[in-house]
Amino acid sequence: MNIHYLTLFPEMYEGVLNSSILARAKEKGIVDYHLINFRDYSEDKHNKVDDYPYGGGAGMVLKPEPIFNAMDKINVEKPRVILLCPQGSPFNQKMAEDLSTEENIVFISGHYEGYDERIRTLVTDEVSIGDYVLTGGELASMTMTDAIVRLIPGVLSNEASHQEDSFSTGMLEHPHYTRPREYRGMKVPDVLISGNHKLIEEWRTEESLKRTRERRPDLLDN
Amino acid sequence: MNIHYLTLFPEMYEGVLNSSILARAKEKGIVDYHLINFRDYSEDKHNKVDDYPYGGGAGMVLKPEPIFNAMDKINVEKPRVILLCPQGSPFNQKMAEDLSTEENIVFISGHYEGYDERIRTLVTDEVSIGDYVLTGGELASMTMTDAIVRLIPGVLSNEASHQEDSFSTGMLEHPHYTRPREYRGMKVPDVLISGNHKLIEEWRTEESLKRTRERRPDLLDN
Repeated sequence: MNIHYLTLFPEMYEGVLNSSILARAKEKGIVDYHLINFRDYSEDKHNKVDDYPYGGGAGMVLKPEPIFNAMDKINVEKPRVILLCPQGSPFNQKMAEDLSTEENIVFISGHYEGYDERIRTLVTDEVSIGDYVLTGGELASMTMTDAIVRLIPGVLSNEASHQEDSFSTGMLEHPHYTRPREYRGMKVPDVLISGNHKLIEEWRTEESLKRTRERRPDLLDN
Repeated sequence: MNIHYLTLFPEMYEGVLNSSILARAKEKGIVDYHLINFRDYSEDKHNKVDDYPYGGGAGMVLKPEPIFNAMDKINVEKPRVILLCPQGSPFNQKMAEDLSTEENIVFISGHYEGYDERIRTLVTDEVSIGDYVLTGGELASMTMTDAIVRLIPGVLSNEASHQEDSFSTGMLEHPHYTRPREYRGMKVPDVLISGNHKLIEEWRTEESLKRTRERRPDLLDN
């Protein structure tokens, strides 16, 4: 998979793309990351990428040229082109699974500015990672990258390890305990030490259900 | 505001905390960021931070000692202690506004592992940034940091600039256009060039409503 990031802040990505499983996926040759500063594709003498909105109002608007020119340059077959914006569809695990099978993904991240509406004609998916306002799309594109790349076969060492995750089962996870058996006066529940696998399974399912009912009853409705 | 990050991957944060408004907020003395590798607080000879789950099962569990010891070390008054986990309350703009008034925030980020349940006794808020599985809490804590810090007075140069953002008004934003007036055959709508401010306002409200109705009818219900 090739992932292309159109951004004005390529330096924001360094720590994230070079750590942990995203770094390992690259080392294994499964994914490659391409950072493209679309300021380099401005048609303006001063490399300006934004301008005042037609019709007036506060804030600046990203001009179409730098994005169109950068897309011409990337020039890959049938990429999924994702515009990070608060108006997008809410990102979820199903979308991550869908995107994990793509050959080419392009993320377009604005920063502060709105997007000139014509940029949307280049886009296959408008996505928001949640109902909160971010300064730019960069963190959203990194977050999506993590959720997507870990699903590609061969990236996680243990194929099973993402199967039990919350949302994959439709329920929140049960509580976990590890050593020490007592810490600062707090003990591990007896059932987990019992060695009775049937009882342990029952306890876990019950706790999982209880937690989901308390915290995310919406998940049980689906 | 002081923000403390308990993490096994402090290097992931560098690019993000040193760019854009997060860097500027620090330069202005409004926020300070503290990266704490909780592996340094392990009580284990080999600096182990995780162990097998009691009761069996796949995956490892974060031991309580490194987190408890790191929290003892931070030792600030009444911090908001946020555990990033899929079982948490969904992060939203209201929570960002609430957190933007705090003096001390601590983010606890696991990576791969589950949390030993006793760690939850240290926590004031369990938060998830969305219904998707991430490898660790790091990107979630950076995303929350961006959403929170930009709301602190003095961080954004233009106080007005975050007022019109989507979610602050409860509706998605209307389309934006900037120069050029025609690009690759696509024209800016005439009404925005008309100079008639009343018509422009009407068009924008209508488009904003239309877009919200089409894409996020749930926002209109609230």
